[in-house]
Amino acid sequence: MTSGKLTGAAVAEHNSKDSCWVIVHGKAYDVTEFLPEHPGGSKIILKYAGKDATEEFDPIHPPDTLDKYLDRSKHLGEVDMATVEQEEKAVDPEETNRLERIKRMPPLAACYNLMDFEAVARQVMKKTAWAYYSSGADDELTMRENHAAFHKIWFRPRVLVDVEHVDLTTTMLGTKCSIPFYVTATALGKLGHPEGEVVLTKAAKEHNVIQMIPTLASCSFDEIVDAKQGDQVQWLQLYVNKDREITRKIIEHAEKRGCKGLFITVDAPQLGRREKDMRSKFSDAGSDVQSGDGSVDRSQGAARAISSFIDPGLSWKDIPWFLSITKMPIILKGVQCVEDVLRAVEAGVHGVVLSNHGGRQLETARSGIEVLAEVMPALRERGWDKRIEVFVDGGVRRATDIIKALCLGAKGVGIGRPFLFAMSSYGLDGVNRAMQLLKDEMEMNMRLIGAQRVEDLNPSLLDIKALLGGHSGVIPSDTLGLGAYDPLEAPRFNEKPKL
Amino acid sequence: MTSGKLTGAAVAEHNSKDSCWVIVHGKAYDVTEFLPEHPGGSKIILKYAGKDATEEFDPIHPPDTLDKYLDRSKHLGEVDMATVEQEEKAVDPEETNRLERIKRMPPLAACYNLMDFEAVARQVMKKTAWAYYSSGADDELTMRENHAAFHKIWFRPRVLVDVEHVDLTTTMLGTKCSIPFYVTATALGKLGHPEGEVVLTKAAKEHNVIQMIPTLASCSFDEIVDAKQGDQVQWLQLYVNKDREITRKIIEHAEKRGCKGLFITVDAPQLGRREKDMRSKFSDAGSDVQSGDGSVDRSQGAARAISSFIDPGLSWKDIPWFLSITKMPIILKGVQCVEDVLRAVEAGVHGVVLSNHGGRQLETARSGIEVLAEVMPALRERGWDKRIEVFVDGGVRRATDIIKALCLGAKGVGIGRPFLFAMSSYGLDGVNRAMQLLKDEMEMNMRLIGAQRVEDLNPSLLDIKALLGGHSGVIPSDTLGLGAYDPLEAPRFNEKPKL
Amino acid sequence: MTSGKLTGAAVAEHNSKDSCWVIVHGKAYDVTEFLPEHPGGSKIILKYAGKDATEEFDPIHPPDTLDKYLDRSKHLGEVDMATVEQEEKAVDPEETNRLERIKRMPPLAACYNLMDFEAVARQVMKKTAWAYYSSGADDELTMRENHAAFHKIWFRPRVLVDVEHVDLTTTMLGTKCSIPFYVTATALGKLGHPEGEVVLTKAAKEHNVIQMIPTLASCSFDEIVDAKQGDQVQWLQLYVNKDREITRKIIEHAEKRGCKGLFITVDAPQLGRREKDMRSKFSDAGSDVQSGDGSVDRSQGAARAISSFIDPGLSWKDIPWFLSITKMPIILKGVQCVEDVLRAVEAGVHGVVLSNHGGRQLETARSGIEVLAEVMPALRERGWDKRIEVFVDGGVRRATDIIKALCLGAKGVGIGRPFLFAMSSYGLDGVNRAMQLLKDEMEMNMRLIGAQRVEDLNPSLLDIKALLGGHSGVIPSDTLGLGAYDPLEAPRFNEKPKL
Amino acid sequence: MTSGKLTGAAVAEHNSKDSCWVIVHGKAYDVTEFLPEHPGGSKIILKYAGKDATEEFDPIHPPDTLDKYLDRSKHLGEVDMATVEQEEKAVDPEETNRLERIKRMPPLAACYNLMDFEAVARQVMKKTAWAYYSSGADDELTMRENHAAFHKIWFRPRVLVDVEHVDLTTTMLGTKCSIPFYVTATALGKLGHPEGEVVLTKAAKEHNVIQMIPTLASCSFDEIVDAKQGDQVQWLQLYVNKDREITRKIIEHAEKRGCKGLFITVDAPQLGRREKDMRSKFSDAGSDVQSGDGSVDRSQGAARAISSFIDPGLSWKDIPWFLSITKMPIILKGVQCVEDVLRAVEAGVHGVVLSNHGGRQLETARSGIEVLAEVMPALRERGWDKRIEVFVDGGVRRATDIIKALCLGAKGVGIGRPFLFAMSSYGLDGVNRAMQLLKDEMEMNMRLIGAQRVEDLNPSLLDIKALLGGHSGVIPSDTLGLGAYDPLEAPRFNEKPKL
Repeated sequence: MTSGKLTGAAVAEHNSKDSCWVIVHGKAYDVTEFLPEHPGGSKIILKYAGKDATEEFDPIHPPDTLDKYLDRSKHLGEVDMATVEQEEKAVDPEETNRLERIKRMPPLAACYNLMDFEAVARQVMKKTAWAYYSSGADDELTMRENHAAFHKIWFRPRVLVDVEHVDLTTTMLGTKCSIPFYVTATALGKLGHPEGEVVLTKAAKEHNVIQMIPTLASCSFDEIVDAKQGDQVQWLQLYVNKDREITRKIIEHAEKRGCKGLFITVDAPQLGRREKDMRSKFSDAGSDVQSGDGSVDRSQGAARAISSFIDPGLSWKDIPWFLSITKMPIILKGVQCVEDVLRAVEAGVHGVVLSNHGGRQLETARSGIEVLAEVMPALRERGWDKRIEVFVDGGVRRATDIIKALCLGAKGVGIGRPFLFAMSSYGLDGVNRAMQLLKDEMEMNMRLIGAQRVEDLNPSLLDIKALLGGHSGVIPSDTLGLGAYDPLEAPRFNEKPKL
Repeated sequence: MTSGKLTGAAVAEHNSKDSCWVIVHGKAYDVTEFLPEHPGGSKIILKYAGKDATEEFDPIHPPDTLDKYLDRSKHLGEVDMATVEQEEKAVDPEETNRLERIKRMPPLAACYNLMDFEAVARQVMKKTAWAYYSSGADDELTMRENHAAFHKIWFRPRVLVDVEHVDLTTTMLGTKCSIPFYVTATALGKLGHPEGEVVLTKAAKEHNVIQMIPTLASCSFDEIVDAKQGDQVQWLQLYVNKDREITRKIIEHAEKRGCKGLFITVDAPQLGRREKDMRSKFSDAGSDVQSGDGSVDRSQGAARAISSFIDPGLSWKDIPWFLSITKMPIILKGVQCVEDVLRAVEAGVHGVVLSNHGGRQLETARSGIEVLAEVMPALRERGWDKRIEVFVDGGVRRATDIIKALCLGAKGVGIGRPFLFAMSSYGLDGVNRAMQLLKDEMEMNMRLIGAQRVEDLNPSLLDIKALLGGHSGVIPSDTLGLGAYDPLEAPRFNEKPKL
Repeated sequence: MTSGKLTGAAVAEHNSKDSCWVIVHGKAYDVTEFLPEHPGGSKIILKYAGKDATEEFDPIHPPDTLDKYLDRSKHLGEVDMATVEQEEKAVDPEETNRLERIKRMPPLAACYNLMDFEAVARQVMKKTAWAYYSSGADDELTMRENHAAFHKIWFRPRVLVDVEHVDLTTTMLGTKCSIPFYVTATALGKLGHPEGEVVLTKAAKEHNVIQMIPTLASCSFDEIVDAKQGDQVQWLQLYVNKDREITRKIIEHAEKRGCKGLFITVDAPQLGRREKDMRSKFSDAGSDVQSGDGSVDRSQGAARAISSFIDPGLSWKDIPWFLSITKMPIILKGVQCVEDVLRAVEAGVHGVVLSNHGGRQLETARSGIEVLAEVMPALRERGWDKRIEVFVDGGVRRATDIIKALCLGAKGVGIGRPFLFAMSSYGLDGVNRAMQLLKDEMEMNMRLIGAQRVEDLNPSLLDIKALLGGHSGVIPSDTLGLGAYDPLEAPRFNEKPKL
Repeated sequence: MTSGKLTGAAVAEHNSKDSCWVIVHGKAYDVTEFLPEHPGGSKIILKYAGKDATEEFDPIHPPDTLDKYLDRSKHLGEVDMATVEQEEKAVDPEETNRLERIKRMPPLAACYNLMDFEAVARQVMKKTAWAYYSSGADDELTMRENHAAFHKIWFRPRVLVDVEHVDLTTTMLGTKCSIPFYVTATALGKLGHPEGEVVLTKAAKEHNVIQMIPTLASCSFDEIVDAKQGDQVQWLQLYVNKDREITRKIIEHAEKRGCKGLFITVDAPQLGRREKDMRSKFSDAGSDVQSGDGSVDRSQGAARAISSFIDPGLSWKDIPWFLSITKMPIILKGVQCVEDVLRAVEAGVHGVVLSNHGGRQLETARSGIEVLAEVMPALRERGWDKRIEVFVDGGVRRATDIIKALCLGAKGVGIGRPFLFAMSSYGLDGVNRAMQLLKDEMEMNMRLIGAQRVEDLNPSLLDIKALLGGHSGVIPSDTLGLGAYDPLEAPRFNEKPKL
């Protein structure tokens, strides 16, 4: 020990489940007793027993995690990092290629739409981070259907409307916004960018849109609220803890810190199986897994590791309690059929988000936009369409998608992954450009559809026949017949130039 | 002859159709007179005349075959195998590649779903075995439609249901099962694994699910029953023999040995043409076939070889006889339209399996799940839905598929090929993992759909509009137009790294 | 001149449009005056001016052509072929490859279905012959739709029907056939096989099916009739000549020679543009075309060359005349909507073929099978369904296709191209095998659908909802979105073998 | 300065925004004060500050631009071009490849349909020109849907109609035309051909079809009118300027010069974002853009650069004014739903073009042909179908497309891009051939559908069920399942030739 600090060698001795120390941000912690309680399993901690775990720890845990969950007595104090042996990492050719690709990245100005950020992110993000952000449930049909569903809706635009001045502003839960989308909650922001969710906070301020703070953020809740400026508005997304006192404290704290909406996630009593994410973890874990006992591998990706506290027993009976402990408007996030929307109105909540959780939970759950087409006529029929605000998320990539949702009756739409991809590729500039592109697109498309204001958007501007027609499965292709067919050719160029 | 055993040379003399001896498991047999009766044709036997036929014999014939069908006088006794000339096999480059692939097989833990086993099996199974298991009728449209049909059904899940405790158990034909699927009958288990169907017996025990024993098993019926443990339940799948006394003996024996259900196959008066299987046999047979008389080749794959005894005359008139000779519940396997289900109820049977035989029989026969959507409303309308149990098989690969079938009214689903692929790739561990994956998926998906028990599953949880909309054919693509179109590109990465 | 024969040199002098001689089958002809009348244009003849044109002449012209159409005075007599200079043909690499492929042809026994013959023919046929047989109108959507339309029809089979004995025989226009298909008329048989249409005559006899003799055969009508054996039945397909006396003679001659049905083609007032065929001719013509005057090229493929005599003025007013000059039953070939079928009944003809001419005439004309689904209910409604026989052709490739047509009410189906492809690849053996495969398939499928006889086939065995639902166009794919999507992967095999 | 001319060196000194001279067609201009007013932004001009800008200037600006918009005092006079330094252009490998491809171009006679010209143009056009012509809005779904929509319409042809004489002529806005299409307005013709729109004028004369003159032509309006011959008829397409006096002058001038129809574009209050076009500009601009301040790039392709004058405030209130200032019939171009067509009738205009601007404006706007199917029954119901003429454009590539539009009730169809592609590839000969191909196709297809005259075309000749059925989105493919599936194979050829 030098100058009152622990040496790397001293820590390295505690490298087993009998005595397990780890270093995080230059400090040592004794996590031996915590091992069985770790929501992500003990295996991943033991991989770093006696070593520096900072790089693995950071994206998954908000900075206040150790203070909150590990008894003070286990905080062993500072480590002289100069004495910690640097681990030689095996050269991973995929990682080498990735770093090389980053050097060749397209300039930000070459991104013309939200898909472009995804195409870039796929090339430049770390494999595990990409897998966590980009993955969906099972065969990912739902995830892809979310965007495809918007393509079942075609416009019936009006011409010769004076659209010199177009106004995109609207109001959501009483807050005026510059454009009818909000940044929806997505977990683990530091997987994509070292600063995490506060990057989104800054972009939301810049563009005057609302940010929904996720329960599973990499940044702590307070860090994200502290990053807020001026009269910027934030909402809180809530996974309900089995221990309701923890939940109560979170809600009361959020209200005190100024959150203007409480979005209770109701589509995730258990977090989904996302096989791309699981597969990415698996190869990451490497040979250890294979040397095991042949039993089912328990490392099931980031999603499972971080969600064990969520209460699968949450039910309609809990709603009055939530209404009793906060003055924030309460919105149920993840409602998926008209029956539950009607029940939500009766339960007295202030809104619903029609969502299948970005296609990450139940496979072949319908898209939010399709459910919206079922929900709004039922609300209007009962005269209930003003009693709640209806939001939609999932698959929104173009301003035309936003306009379609609003024509059908949504108050606003949530956008998640596209901003993560923009942030992961280009940081704050990326998110700002993504938001600006949506504004440019929306201003133009309002003109082209013949609408001056958000209030002008209505169902007569749409043809939604296909949305109501059900979900065709893939048609098995006629392998033999198509294989025998000789396709038509365009005129052939000569093989050699004419002299 | 040494020590009372036949020498290889002595056997080798009998290598023609005039005198044809073969060696199986170290014993010689005179099959000269049996040649014309062999259901698979004489050609395949003659290929091994005077030689050791064990490797070819094993997967196709249960061990008691020679005892049952070849007169004792033709059993020539043991052969001194050391004296049998080892045939030099030509090196088959495809087989060499396969063996090399086996060395590089993914670890079992990398299989995350049932499709993964199929993807691995395709690479590591022997070509002919793969062809037999994986093939379907004609253009294999039906085979592929079976799974695709489930993708026409989308969920209408309920939220805020207390799903802390989820119960997957159900009852089929009076037997309590841990999850509503059973291992359906599939032929020739030893093509995929040297132990054959008993591997499935062991996995079924481990997971407390019912196994249906196939008539065309590689193992003998008694071997499969002997492998049963404790109160494990098995059913019998029956191809009805033209000789009804043989059929009667099989049924009575099965009942005596404890089988709890008799599934009479009604969709196979003749086994289907499976061209992938036929093609694989063909190249296996090699140059012999080509040197023939130019007539139609008679080797039509494994399916045809083993099924010549099946009675195409079986009809509704036979049902009372079956009901009279057994107390086992009788289920018709392979019913394909509502008219026949109603007739089955009137005939007094105890159940039906809606099935197109895994897409291996009639091409463009509708999937079981589609027929189910037609059948159940008709049964309910008549108040007959409790009079029989309705099962479905074909295309089940995900727990969501099981849940969809149960929502529509099925009592349980049969799963066949996926377990064969798991067994062929990873043996018993593979099958166990496949079943465990289904349980994990199903527990999660019950939570996500908002159902605690199997009884909570009902049609209001589904959107089946597309299932009722008929079968689109493939749309001819616009070759010229699409060829001339210049597709959109994502941002381009620079070709050289920035310095 | 030697021994009274012309020398090659003497012929070679007449190599211009001012004096143009050609050699066909060892005889010289002076075609100078015939040049402007040649239906295929003068250019193609001039290519062979002064040379041997036999190879080009043969497939397009029946042997009696020169006798019929060229005045005796222009028949110059025999040529001493030993004195004719052999033209050195430029080596065409495509042709070299084709000849090499022929050496490697799959054995006939490896063809398991009718598509297989097409796949082989595509590789082994001469390019121009393949182009003529395989091409369709415009974008060939209709041609492909013809087969795809059958995939919109799915079966509702019946089980537990005694199908030990299945009877495929039926009667068409009073003739008993072994199976309900006939060999429909297709032009230019010698493009595919040196013997031409008589190959089909022999196979039709072997399998006891009816052959329809084409107007545009490579063999002469009498050659095809002469090839008939025993009580074999043939029909005549007729393109109506502008000169009705020629037509009258053809009909009277056909009746005299025993034809049992007259099929008047009504869907080809002008033969279609088939761009694959045109493109193939074009490159065949080589540099000549390019050196021209830049005007529109007039060589429009084989179809146009041979059809200039067809009368585009043919109309309903002509029908009584046809009925008055023959006792053969008259069938209109190429009817395409219910209105015209009803009119045909009123006009007193004996049958119709619902057909779009194999997709070779009007692009986006509906398939015969789709029109059939519209026609039969209308006929039944009026009680007219016994007044005419309704046939269908186009896209029939499987016995299931035949069964579907018969279930809907067709009396029989015509099959054309598949037999041409079988003949072009494997000659008579090929056609025989193709017909046998259909019989094998049909016997099996009758069993699997639960039908003993052709009369048992009826609409309740089908689900035709999709056929009635209209024609979806191709859905534009979401290029950017799909490009950004990262598809799921199966488990990865290790890159290097484990040691 | 030599002989009164400016030297290149003198011009080159004025190479900044403080003093910016450019050379166009051998004359120098001082554009310093004009920089901020340039509709395409100052950046593109500054790129040529002090240099010769002719090549960039020409396709975008009609020849009279500088005279019209730049004060005489800024016209600096002639430049001695011999003294202007030739800029060494970096060799662009894409451009090198393009020039090489031009040498190998297919002969014109190898183009058999309108798609063929597009396939050739894609290979031989300059990248930026191709991008401007070929691009569409957003994901280009609408652009592709335009042609695909015609494939949802199938024919119900009539047979046995006397079609010896077919008459394609019709009348549009009182002008007799040889065939019912017109050359619709498209911008920037010189991007594709150095002579620009006058090439189209000549072809239109040759084929007796009407040309619509675009506001945004590369040639000046008068040049295009001057190219007119005899009684050739032209129409004017009008983008309405914010300054109505300019608009008035344009209209009055057009009427004076003999234009016979005024087509007011109503679907472009703002020109669309076409990302392919934007992306092409971007890479053209090169490194400059990247060295910028990271803000959103303002160079948004050719479309934006040239359209800033268009008035987004244009509305129904303006229509009476237009009617008051001209006797030309007024047609609204770009109407997209039945409500607006009815309003147009009430407003007293003489026609509408149902169009989504070639898929270049609002993404997922319905095709003109689909809107037509909605519009005509509504007009007929009110007896208004003779009160206006209804035209359609977008996606017309085949004569069958024209016929379908006329069957539904259109008076004629506009064709744009195909003629541009023909012109860009083969000049006037190309456009002539394209028009001739349409005539050949139409004559044949009129025969095949059983129509003698344009008046015979009516809705009973079509099956449009699919057109009315809505827009399916792309169905997410079953990646894992399809990946695991082993497709059927055709017979395999031997690998080595038989000896």
